[in-house]
Amino acid sequence: MAGSTFGKVFRVTTWGESHGTAVGATVDGCPPGIELSEDIIQADLDRRKPGTGGAASPRKEPDQVEILSGVFEGKTTGTPISLIIYNKDAHSKSYTHLKDIFRPGHGDITYLKKYGTRDHRGGGRASARETAARVAAGAVARTILATEGVEVLAYTLALGGIKAAQFDPEAIGKNRLFCPDLKAAGEMENKIAATKKQGDTLGGVVEVRTTGCPAGLGEPVFDKLDAEIAKALMSIGAVKGVEIGSGFEASEMLGSQNNDSLTPDGFSSNNSGGILAGISNGDQIIARAAVKPIPSIGQEQNTINVAGEPVSITIGGRHDISAIPRIIPVCEAMICLVLADHLLRQRVNFSSAER
Amino acid sequence: MAGSTFGKVFRVTTWGESHGTAVGATVDGCPPGIELSEDIIQADLDRRKPGTGGAASPRKEPDQVEILSGVFEGKTTGTPISLIIYNKDAHSKSYTHLKDIFRPGHGDITYLKKYGTRDHRGGGRASARETAARVAAGAVARTILATEGVEVLAYTLALGGIKAAQFDPEAIGKNRLFCPDLKAAGEMENKIAATKKQGDTLGGVVEVRTTGCPAGLGEPVFDKLDAEIAKALMSIGAVKGVEIGSGFEASEMLGSQNNDSLTPDGFSSNNSGGILAGISNGDQIIARAAVKPIPSIGQEQNTINVAGEPVSITIGGRHDISAIPRIIPVCEAMICLVLADHLLRQRVNFSSAER
Amino acid sequence: MAGSTFGKVFRVTTWGESHGTAVGATVDGCPPGIELSEDIIQADLDRRKPGTGGAASPRKEPDQVEILSGVFEGKTTGTPISLIIYNKDAHSKSYTHLKDIFRPGHGDITYLKKYGTRDHRGGGRASARETAARVAAGAVARTILATEGVEVLAYTLALGGIKAAQFDPEAIGKNRLFCPDLKAAGEMENKIAATKKQGDTLGGVVEVRTTGCPAGLGEPVFDKLDAEIAKALMSIGAVKGVEIGSGFEASEMLGSQNNDSLTPDGFSSNNSGGILAGISNGDQIIARAAVKPIPSIGQEQNTINVAGEPVSITIGGRHDISAIPRIIPVCEAMICLVLADHLLRQRVNFSSAER
Amino acid sequence: MAGSTFGKVFRVTTWGESHGTAVGATVDGCPPGIELSEDIIQADLDRRKPGTGGAASPRKEPDQVEILSGVFEGKTTGTPISLIIYNKDAHSKSYTHLKDIFRPGHGDITYLKKYGTRDHRGGGRASARETAARVAAGAVARTILATEGVEVLAYTLALGGIKAAQFDPEAIGKNRLFCPDLKAAGEMENKIAATKKQGDTLGGVVEVRTTGCPAGLGEPVFDKLDAEIAKALMSIGAVKGVEIGSGFEASEMLGSQNNDSLTPDGFSSNNSGGILAGISNGDQIIARAAVKPIPSIGQEQNTINVAGEPVSITIGGRHDISAIPRIIPVCEAMICLVLADHLLRQRVNFSSAER
Repeated sequence: MAGSTFGKVFRVTTWGESHGTAVGATVDGCPPGIELSEDIIQADLDRRKPGTGGAASPRKEPDQVEILSGVFEGKTTGTPISLIIYNKDAHSKSYTHLKDIFRPGHGDITYLKKYGTRDHRGGGRASARETAARVAAGAVARTILATEGVEVLAYTLALGGIKAAQFDPEAIGKNRLFCPDLKAAGEMENKIAATKKQGDTLGGVVEVRTTGCPAGLGEPVFDKLDAEIAKALMSIGAVKGVEIGSGFEASEMLGSQNNDSLTPDGFSSNNSGGILAGISNGDQIIARAAVKPIPSIGQEQNTINVAGEPVSITIGGRHDISAIPRIIPVCEAMICLVLADHLLRQRVNFSSAER
Repeated sequence: MAGSTFGKVFRVTTWGESHGTAVGATVDGCPPGIELSEDIIQADLDRRKPGTGGAASPRKEPDQVEILSGVFEGKTTGTPISLIIYNKDAHSKSYTHLKDIFRPGHGDITYLKKYGTRDHRGGGRASARETAARVAAGAVARTILATEGVEVLAYTLALGGIKAAQFDPEAIGKNRLFCPDLKAAGEMENKIAATKKQGDTLGGVVEVRTTGCPAGLGEPVFDKLDAEIAKALMSIGAVKGVEIGSGFEASEMLGSQNNDSLTPDGFSSNNSGGILAGISNGDQIIARAAVKPIPSIGQEQNTINVAGEPVSITIGGRHDISAIPRIIPVCEAMICLVLADHLLRQRVNFSSAER
Repeated sequence: MAGSTFGKVFRVTTWGESHGTAVGATVDGCPPGIELSEDIIQADLDRRKPGTGGAASPRKEPDQVEILSGVFEGKTTGTPISLIIYNKDAHSKSYTHLKDIFRPGHGDITYLKKYGTRDHRGGGRASARETAARVAAGAVARTILATEGVEVLAYTLALGGIKAAQFDPEAIGKNRLFCPDLKAAGEMENKIAATKKQGDTLGGVVEVRTTGCPAGLGEPVFDKLDAEIAKALMSIGAVKGVEIGSGFEASEMLGSQNNDSLTPDGFSSNNSGGILAGISNGDQIIARAAVKPIPSIGQEQNTINVAGEPVSITIGGRHDISAIPRIIPVCEAMICLVLADHLLRQRVNFSSAER
Repeated sequence: MAGSTFGKVFRVTTWGESHGTAVGATVDGCPPGIELSEDIIQADLDRRKPGTGGAASPRKEPDQVEILSGVFEGKTTGTPISLIIYNKDAHSKSYTHLKDIFRPGHGDITYLKKYGTRDHRGGGRASARETAARVAAGAVARTILATEGVEVLAYTLALGGIKAAQFDPEAIGKNRLFCPDLKAAGEMENKIAATKKQGDTLGGVVEVRTTGCPAGLGEPVFDKLDAEIAKALMSIGAVKGVEIGSGFEASEMLGSQNNDSLTPDGFSSNNSGGILAGISNGDQIIARAAVKPIPSIGQEQNTINVAGEPVSITIGGRHDISAIPRIIPVCEAMICLVLADHLLRQRVNFSSAER
């Protein structure tokens, strides 16, 4: 049973491959009466657009979203919203030399094992290209959240081992890496430049901070809000770890340190990351994703071909040095999808009279 | 929309509160012809039984599972398997003094915010008691996995900041903490004893290792195998972080370090944790869960009551010092649920003739 | 992928076989704060209880429901409600002579083909016994509907070719067959008595009438309210046809006859059966189910055994002459499940502020 | 929770309104390696194309399907198949005079009640236009079924009260109404012509016959094969009733008449319609749908406007006299979706080794 749908009440189904005709998403379950336009969605997509600098690939990718259904006279109708982004820069020929080779760190071998067949054109469905559809759908989710005062913001906490030492929200918009510490951002850029020369790549850590989320979102047991967030972030190709609040650090803390005291003015700390027993507590929701270095490196690598024979491979072309910063809006989108879904799910618990 | 069901093809629905009549699980989607008995399930439940030593609570909890349906003459029939574990040791009276107080680190306040009502008897649905049903259902999943040679093993990687320095599978069964390093296990016991005296609690890290998993499990995009594992582990109450393979460490590695080379004899390393592009690659699947310290500590804490007034609270009774080791079989169960589901999901890709 | 769960927001999972330990249902997604007790559920179950007269089997079946979870101090908590009905009258031995024979009209052969194995004890999961769990779960749905003024009533429209000539709601409670026409009910009883002497069985038609249903329930396209009702009723073992409003008669009407005119006081007729374009229009919802005669007849029948050899079979024991009236509360329950689910599903379309 | 997705393993999500940019469907869960092309899908769509004769509207509607993803080198890849059909003939202006009026028999009023808003352009999502996407997705399902020898054929059993007196499969392709009785087809055409003159419309009955379906498809309890078929057919806008096998007639038969005897050569009759206890028995699957007359009639009708005031309405334009024959391929498509889904669902019950 395939897995291209996310969410239960606010449901997003994505489709499309990196070098096919288009990628897209269908949003089923968006409430009626929400203001929506291509411009609103485009704004999020543009943040995903590669820059001209070192970390991002210079490959042109002018993602233009079109709304094909579900919006009438500037508002959602309650019926499915179909979003499409045509692939304008597809050069499937450039991948033919990789047709019979498994690239290390990529899904080439696992897709072949899974399906008995392989779409070798640039990763196919496994390509980061697919995340453009997530960002478009996430923008729809964000408009719903905005109507209830919920804001989701992602930024770079670390890149190549260099960590942001402070959280200055103003700084985020002032550097290409969406880092909340301008000094650290500068060091990260230097690291990127040096790594590029070596033909190597870098990973990092993205943090997503949600403010204004009402208490009560998330469902007991399996669909806990943190469990859904973990799935959402880990479903992004490059992510290898997810934390909520104090996260892995909590494993070394004492209970007396990790517990957040309740006071008449709110929680005295936020080690819980805004989630207690899987349900939002009204505090900021803090999630982090560990991003692995991009597997397409410029150096020669050892691998095998489909016949199982050892070969060496050098992946040419102009690739990104790090999934950061392009992964930033994707992380935001995934959190928006989770929260919009649970905001709507919580509505079923009470009739209008009871609220 | 509630969240008490896990899995899509192998579907488990759990129910029950800590101090209600019983807890249980219904497994829908178990294939026919699998050998199953109460003894097989009981073996997993017994591993969850509290010991007499320091880390675990001395409260008696003799979980006896009954199979109410879906098994005939020692084999599954293909119809739902209903499992029930009666609560024999429910003392709801002992919680009445907490009726109007929000315990720090617990879901007391979030359940009230969510439902407008509260079952104050020992955590209700948020209690770790609920995980007994998961372990029972996980045992069913394990029998399916066993028929295809898949084995899932969880153990303690760290407790209270003390880390296992080696992985000796023989050691796991020889200490109460399921630690693969007997020397570290001893140090952990000392730490537990010292922490108990302080009325405090400890967290840790659990690692789950799966061997024999065929390549090809997991679905592209949202239902990636690692995304499902992340949700599965994070849905356990005490877990605040999840990693796959090199995990958070990957965020500081170079691409040339983190990539696992393919050779005719398999992968040369396993930074991927056995999962590439969300699909199992045939190698060992390595997942880790960060476990927070138990929030019920023996020390006095500041909190508020339902009227929002500041109060202090001291939680009496005999509580565990750490969710480890009792969380170990729960982690195993959740991984079993994910893998059994995806093993069955992968079957739909091919007709019997094509395999 | 198994099919023991019904509903998307109000979700019911049933389990249990006719001659196993028990049957039961887990309701996940019931809102909190609904008054619920075993007595409320028992009232619906008692309507399903076999009488002493001709149509129903004299086999004792004192279905006593127990609520195992999800209710605290007389109200639902929002967490799963587990319902169990122990099988007190299971004589699996009495079916051993049928072990290797396929009974005509029963699922013996199809279950074997499906699962490669067979639980021969009285039909197993295919038995009408399973519907006790539906009735119990339906009673929970009914309490939700009642809070919003929705009432569901089923009755016998025809039995053995004899049709009710009038709809007198008072009459329904005054005869064992739940027929709204006492004169027709008398004729039906005579037909039952005569058929019983012949060792044969009868079918009939059940109508379900819902009053007080708000407009706006049902979802465009696949989850239309009438589509969900059709599935709900057809999922009852004995049902072979379903109609809404003018139903099959509509196929012979002109558009000018079948259209219901709108007036300031409501619709001038109800050929639509209360559903337009798959969404409730505020009028009464009228659904009908065609019930086939019970396949277990007293006469000798030709069939085959598992080896494919022709054999003759005479099914002994005391069986019902018709699925009516015991199917009546089952039909009600299924409509309650559909409507409660869609009542809750409609809540997600508006925030509390918008209503 | 919206309802634009059908199926559990073979999952189809449709989107699009009658007078929007396009309609489309995303198929998730199609196995890899199935031969698929736009030509294969177009063949089914062309059967839905309006003819020039009396029953169908002369409005041009050249539905051209495009495959946007999921197919590589002529075969499915296992990833989502996105299908799009642009609306070339959308005249939304022609509906502006209906903007504030509720057309009898249409969903105008129920959509407004549901969403608080209305897309008045020709029915929006409730339009039969939406079924083009179903037919396209159904064509994908049909290719899967074909690989296992399953064939689905729909035809006109009755139209305007005139019934086919015989089943001549050769005849179906020889008349515009897909009627298996050429003499009846002629009478139906006369009835259509006469009704057209009166400005009225007609209903009818469609029968769908499936051959080659293996035994064992369908799931016990709620997802019975007949329950799924009932939902599938009733989800088509014009359908008001569904029957399987002997259907409503069974309600008047004796058990001894309705039971199909088993013989070494198969069943002696097919009153079950190929489904026993909700599971296919290997015989032909026979389903019928009652189709109501098209509500858009040429005569003046009484209705109300959005202010609740009585008004009269005459719906101009060239509309179809009957949903038959254009509904025929839609019925086929829905049965194909059900069967493909259950064919794949049944695969999970056995590993390749067991088959």
